[in-house]
Amino acid sequence: MPFVRISVYAETPTDIRKAIADSVYEAMRETIGIPEGDRFIVVTPHGPNELFIDPHFQGGNRDQRFVLVHITLSHGRTVQQKQALYASIAQRIGQAAGVPADNVMTVLTENTFEDWSFSHGLAQFVLNPPAWVRKPDNGS
Amino acid sequence: MPFVRISVYAETPTDIRKAIADSVYEAMRETIGIPEGDRFIVVTPHGPNELFIDPHFQGGNRDQRFVLVHITLSHGRTVQQKQALYASIAQRIGQAAGVPADNVMTVLTENTFEDWSFSHGLAQFVLNPPAWVRKPDNGS
Amino acid sequence: MPFVRISVYAETPTDIRKAIADSVYEAMRETIGIPEGDRFIVVTPHGPNELFIDPHFQGGNRDQRFVLVHITLSHGRTVQQKQALYASIAQRIGQAAGVPADNVMTVLTENTFEDWSFSHGLAQFVLNPPAWVRKPDNGS
Repeated sequence: MPFVRISVYAETPTDIRKAIADSVYEAMRETIGIPEGDRFIVVTPHGPNELFIDPHFQGGNRDQRFVLVHITLSHGRTVQQKQALYASIAQRIGQAAGVPADNVMTVLTENTFEDWSFSHGLAQFVLNPPAWVRKPDNGS
Repeated sequence: MPFVRISVYAETPTDIRKAIADSVYEAMRETIGIPEGDRFIVVTPHGPNELFIDPHFQGGNRDQRFVLVHITLSHGRTVQQKQALYASIAQRIGQAAGVPADNVMTVLTENTFEDWSFSHGLAQFVLNPPAWVRKPDNGS
Repeated sequence: MPFVRISVYAETPTDIRKAIADSVYEAMRETIGIPEGDRFIVVTPHGPNELFIDPHFQGGNRDQRFVLVHITLSHGRTVQQKQALYASIAQRIGQAAGVPADNVMTVLTENTFEDWSFSHGLAQFVLNPPAWVRKPDNGS
């Protein structure tokens, strides 16, 4: 269910792009309990004058190896799970793609379980709610 | 008001891209009551090593014809309306672009009516709320 | 902390793309109080059959100079701040890039402070909450 958009510089080799995508998938598998095969990842390479990224804000040392991981996922993860996700993404991208951890940025946007149609024009999580679906707020 | 990002493989012919965009617009017109002309759609074609899409998760049979439709829209639609939207998108893309329904994925992200400025630096829905604007939560 | 995606037509010259990105950053500095250096902006140019934009909806007069600014930011800004942001973006892009105000569209998507990892696999705003972080809802 997470849908992932990854932005990189155009100089990033294609095998490295794949290693980055694999790393994000594996980190989500490890830390936020997504099922096997739940992989929907779009990588967009950007040329000159397309990425305007501060090199040092909040502790980075960003250069042409910068990776921005933007994940849309259903709400329900705890702060601790999110922290584990960030750590795992940075560590795995470092190991698999050689990108230093201060060059990896992750941003989350949450939606809800009825906001997903994987195929066939159906809302699979409405028809068959997964275990992680929390009860909707009861009127509060 | 919906803003739509559509991701396709680069092999998708340009006339098919247009047919896909038209189909999403018409589905939103039909099922979630957007006004005529409310069409803001960005299509991005992706080359090799840019789309990492599981072929079978949750019932798909995805290949190079895969279409990912990501819609940002104001909150307020019911689950039933969302289900009708997914069905209409898949059906219309199938008819107009020849893409099988198990190759069509739709994801929604909701915001609120004050999050839109269509032009002139104004927040049109704050100045002139549309009929679908729900009262903001009163302190609960 | 805001993360900005800007969509333009491919005809937009590179110096104008930079001027647009700078304008959005300066407008956020002016109106929603982001700190110096908080600049994470991705510009994507789009070729033929990639942008399907209504020319006149809600008062626009949109053409090949159209600029779509999509900002992901933490919640907490007031409606008044958002209105000031839209006005400043349109005005600054007009001055710096020569784009008329009816060709500038802005959309916001909000998340929360724990949804950001800027570098090193850490959730910086969890570890060290910025001044604008509001208390989480207390059980309501």
